[in-house]
Amino acid sequence: MTPSRPVVLLKPEPQAASRIFTSVARARLESSFEVVDLEGVDNASAIDEALADAFAVVGQPDLDTDRLVRAQHLRVIINVEGNFFPNVDYQTAFQRGIRVLGCGTAYADAVAEMALGLAIDLARGITREDRSFREGRERYVSEGTHDSILLRGSTIGLVGFGNIGRRLAALLQPFRAHLLAYDPWLPAAVLKEHGVDAARLPWVLSRSDFVFVLATVTSDSEHLIGAKELDLLKQGARLILVSRASVVDYDALYRVLADGRVQAAVDVWPQEPMSRKDPARKLDGLVMSPHRAGGIPQAFFEIGDMVCDDLELIGHGLPPVRLQVAAPELVGRYRNRPVGARP
Amino acid sequence: MTPSRPVVLLKPEPQAASRIFTSVARARLESSFEVVDLEGVDNASAIDEALADAFAVVGQPDLDTDRLVRAQHLRVIINVEGNFFPNVDYQTAFQRGIRVLGCGTAYADAVAEMALGLAIDLARGITREDRSFREGRERYVSEGTHDSILLRGSTIGLVGFGNIGRRLAALLQPFRAHLLAYDPWLPAAVLKEHGVDAARLPWVLSRSDFVFVLATVTSDSEHLIGAKELDLLKQGARLILVSRASVVDYDALYRVLADGRVQAAVDVWPQEPMSRKDPARKLDGLVMSPHRAGGIPQAFFEIGDMVCDDLELIGHGLPPVRLQVAAPELVGRYRNRPVGARP
Amino acid sequence: MTPSRPVVLLKPEPQAASRIFTSVARARLESSFEVVDLEGVDNASAIDEALADAFAVVGQPDLDTDRLVRAQHLRVIINVEGNFFPNVDYQTAFQRGIRVLGCGTAYADAVAEMALGLAIDLARGITREDRSFREGRERYVSEGTHDSILLRGSTIGLVGFGNIGRRLAALLQPFRAHLLAYDPWLPAAVLKEHGVDAARLPWVLSRSDFVFVLATVTSDSEHLIGAKELDLLKQGARLILVSRASVVDYDALYRVLADGRVQAAVDVWPQEPMSRKDPARKLDGLVMSPHRAGGIPQAFFEIGDMVCDDLELIGHGLPPVRLQVAAPELVGRYRNRPVGARP
Amino acid sequence: MTPSRPVVLLKPEPQAASRIFTSVARARLESSFEVVDLEGVDNASAIDEALADAFAVVGQPDLDTDRLVRAQHLRVIINVEGNFFPNVDYQTAFQRGIRVLGCGTAYADAVAEMALGLAIDLARGITREDRSFREGRERYVSEGTHDSILLRGSTIGLVGFGNIGRRLAALLQPFRAHLLAYDPWLPAAVLKEHGVDAARLPWVLSRSDFVFVLATVTSDSEHLIGAKELDLLKQGARLILVSRASVVDYDALYRVLADGRVQAAVDVWPQEPMSRKDPARKLDGLVMSPHRAGGIPQAFFEIGDMVCDDLELIGHGLPPVRLQVAAPELVGRYRNRPVGARP
Repeated sequence: MTPSRPVVLLKPEPQAASRIFTSVARARLESSFEVVDLEGVDNASAIDEALADAFAVVGQPDLDTDRLVRAQHLRVIINVEGNFFPNVDYQTAFQRGIRVLGCGTAYADAVAEMALGLAIDLARGITREDRSFREGRERYVSEGTHDSILLRGSTIGLVGFGNIGRRLAALLQPFRAHLLAYDPWLPAAVLKEHGVDAARLPWVLSRSDFVFVLATVTSDSEHLIGAKELDLLKQGARLILVSRASVVDYDALYRVLADGRVQAAVDVWPQEPMSRKDPARKLDGLVMSPHRAGGIPQAFFEIGDMVCDDLELIGHGLPPVRLQVAAPELVGRYRNRPVGARP
Repeated sequence: MTPSRPVVLLKPEPQAASRIFTSVARARLESSFEVVDLEGVDNASAIDEALADAFAVVGQPDLDTDRLVRAQHLRVIINVEGNFFPNVDYQTAFQRGIRVLGCGTAYADAVAEMALGLAIDLARGITREDRSFREGRERYVSEGTHDSILLRGSTIGLVGFGNIGRRLAALLQPFRAHLLAYDPWLPAAVLKEHGVDAARLPWVLSRSDFVFVLATVTSDSEHLIGAKELDLLKQGARLILVSRASVVDYDALYRVLADGRVQAAVDVWPQEPMSRKDPARKLDGLVMSPHRAGGIPQAFFEIGDMVCDDLELIGHGLPPVRLQVAAPELVGRYRNRPVGARP
Repeated sequence: MTPSRPVVLLKPEPQAASRIFTSVARARLESSFEVVDLEGVDNASAIDEALADAFAVVGQPDLDTDRLVRAQHLRVIINVEGNFFPNVDYQTAFQRGIRVLGCGTAYADAVAEMALGLAIDLARGITREDRSFREGRERYVSEGTHDSILLRGSTIGLVGFGNIGRRLAALLQPFRAHLLAYDPWLPAAVLKEHGVDAARLPWVLSRSDFVFVLATVTSDSEHLIGAKELDLLKQGARLILVSRASVVDYDALYRVLADGRVQAAVDVWPQEPMSRKDPARKLDGLVMSPHRAGGIPQAFFEIGDMVCDDLELIGHGLPPVRLQVAAPELVGRYRNRPVGARP
Repeated sequence: MTPSRPVVLLKPEPQAASRIFTSVARARLESSFEVVDLEGVDNASAIDEALADAFAVVGQPDLDTDRLVRAQHLRVIINVEGNFFPNVDYQTAFQRGIRVLGCGTAYADAVAEMALGLAIDLARGITREDRSFREGRERYVSEGTHDSILLRGSTIGLVGFGNIGRRLAALLQPFRAHLLAYDPWLPAAVLKEHGVDAARLPWVLSRSDFVFVLATVTSDSEHLIGAKELDLLKQGARLILVSRASVVDYDALYRVLADGRVQAAVDVWPQEPMSRKDPARKLDGLVMSPHRAGGIPQAFFEIGDMVCDDLELIGHGLPPVRLQVAAPELVGRYRNRPVGARP
């Protein structure tokens, strides 16, 4: 018997349904759809069974060719975790006209605000001086501000210009800074539309007072910022890392921080959790953040709201407008854990 | 003998000329004016002598009625320190058509950016989590973000809406927050022009997710934010103090911080330097900043540039446009040390 | 023999290649691709032949199932005219992973600026008073401004919130107006992100001082604005029509214009060219524009630049970022001539 | 007997009280002040009598030295018409600490919106094509858009950067244009704060796609834009005149318009009303507006609200914040009728 409402198969692990759906959103989902909730159910045949009728999959269950071919009613697969893992046969999904949607944009506001906060922290030594204050070494008024700088009127470089870069560029508008971005996947016209000048990486690194590393990891971007690139940074530059650890060579980074030539704020780390004895824990020109930029309550609940909005649109024969449409060209090209994922 | 160029009497203490004039600005000043530099000269008669010819006074020397009356050529007095002290007979200056200018606006960008940085710090626990990280107690990803919130879409209250409030409101535009302000000196129309809704103090305090205290100190504003007002704050509210310590009752503030009901970032303190044993140094929900919001190099040099710009305009018979014109109604009403002043 | 560079089949009619490609853009296209230029060639077999090797089709030739199946190397079809006509088997294209791209966004800036200009024209009677002036009936200063209103602080309604609505909303930001939009295809969250409140159509019509009709035509939107809806408009409302004529009942519109209850600026007409004797030509509260909002030189050349940018990206295995990706759910649903199309 | 409430002498001619005070504003004024309403009363002694007690003068009565000296309680003079006429002994007012306030800013929004509307009109030929349409000569779609241009990304020059220039610069922000301004009274830093680059007049004229003439008239600015300056304009430039007629040489302007080299929108005229036979009425590349940019109902009522706001502040010993404080250096330097004044 076919259910009267379209079936949504919910299998959110490693995400948790309670983290992404408010009670209001959950009720909304259930009122429009027949939700087959398999969270915590470790039973492949339950998934197979639900797929037979499923209009949508919300979550990250394995979806190989076979399963997709048998899911005759499937219209959309929604990843609610962060990245597109290779446990789905995306090619077959695309051929069958199944929408593949991701939730990366849900984290963009959270990461952009955090990145701005980290930049101002470095510009003004907020964390460093709080530490001194607690140790009774505080310096008042202009005695401790010789290296303080404004964002206003500065040159700001963005390495990577995706969702986070766009939100960040919007937040930076009132500062009247000169915005530069390096993004090999984007023509200059796209950057220009956001008030940003396109530039090559060495130019961005050598001209900017603030450098935000926002690049997604692909095979091309591994150690995109190595020793040579760090040497291009201006004396006194501030570096903010909030995307993926593998984009940067951390050994080289720690060296320039120890020199005091550059200051950095870092939210992603090559190993998480970090060793207790890691020397980074002693570096003074460093603001340390344990992978906290994206995964905040409002971002998680945004995912649930996006899922409801887009499922309803697709149910009415309309295209999704809130979640991110997976690009066939890119799926499978990403490699690392996403911002907001559990370690 | 009257000098060929207008005479500028420079007596900047407690400010330092080298801190406010870049070498370029100093050269510019000297090219248009005859600078009588009395910095470090402790000699009243030297001042009297220079005043006889002076077109401008740049600095804070005593200017009593007598001196002003004898300064026949004086057109402008420029305070380069921060606040208007009662060592000048402002009434006489106004009657004689002498412009009285202040440099408070030079600090506005610096304070506004710092205030925004402190707000994001509180929103996301940046300083607190860096401290944990250094102590080996870091919590990764969503384990430490349960109290993280966005500025985006939040309600933000401003207590006081002068230069700093305006700059801050501009920086907050892209966050699409609801901005409320309490300022008893301003009609609602002025706030509206900046995208801010006027409200009474209790409303601002009880509705806002973030409260910025930006009020200047007058006799009316002493302990404007006392225990009763702090009790109005929402559970989880973030309070940012960057104006004057006497606006707030610190004992009451420490109590609500110790409770954990509210978090705060504080840049001004009732006593500076603070006692080594002050319990504030142990409060976890507090970001401590030792009066560093305003007095940064770019702000100080801005003063020198403003002085040059406005002296040149006045020399050409035009009104000043960069420094702040003292309001006869307000001079003498301020009481505390300004942001950026030495303790 | 397979050509060394990917083959682009160019068949732009009814668009003209010289109108969309600057000489620089054309040279750029030719340097990266083997361009088979069939503009003006009326020969089906030439198209068949070129399709065998084609990597891209730029233009609007018929592409039925048969042709698409035989176009083994085809990766992308780019419509450079405006709308997706039913002469392509889109379903087959999607199944074969062929990108289908449109150029609608190229007109968005042009239409949004024009729409804003028309709104200010109506707000202030610019065209009407120029006409009076030329006839010697001009009224100076406040004698002719009794019905002049500001956009600043007004309530502005948008009927439809696609590309044009977004650009227009951005242009309206500094006016601090209250923006309302009706768009049945979009959840409220999308509007909110642009600073716009979602509302039902009757609410938008009855509350707004300015109403912009920007809706695309589908079977649902035919005569979306009929007599009943026009009656909801406020006395003195200004109506701006720049999308599709069939969205509005023109007979009803002319009646409310003749009454003087509403003023309108209209860029699209039920019949183009309009009859010489059409009574609209005499209506005073009407600004008449002969379908000129979108098709300006900069918009046309933008299409060519977008084509070059996206073809290069696709050639490098990356997703397109400038042209509009056709939504499988919507292709075939549109009906009318696009903005910018020839009559 | 001294009245219990402060006395406001109202003598608004040539302005009309009913035009600037809404009934709400009038009631508000009367509730805080004793209003001595001498509108329409042509009796010098009534003014003398009222002045004896007056706290404020709202309007433009003659105030010579004698009257000011006898007005012992006078604290503020508010011009509600537009310009500071030489019928007041401003010098004495300043010496006596009397505030002199003007209402010029009330017109700024109205003029800035009109100026933007005129610029878009010229960019797109709105008025011209409406005229053609009514004459049955309309050209559809791209046939009549060969000279249409975008503001987006253009270079825009402002001649004069006062209140109107600032509002206009704010309205232009989303267009991402390059803004240049020539203003000999302002240092570059003031322009930079508004996102505008300072430039000399010839540079502004020769580089800009759009030139807004916003300069106030002084002896220095008479025919600031003469034949020589008009020759500097780019082929196809658009010129918008909304400030004062005497800034421009109209004979020279008509010549470049007749040539078709430049298009213009003009709101101020050397003679108002203009002769019926003036050849300007036949010029095609001209949008004609009979001095309507400033004097609209909302602007007039803004004056009344500003008067109430500032009188209340001054009554409470606070400085005014809404009306424009007269600069002693400039009063008496202006010459022409203001925008919004009756001809």
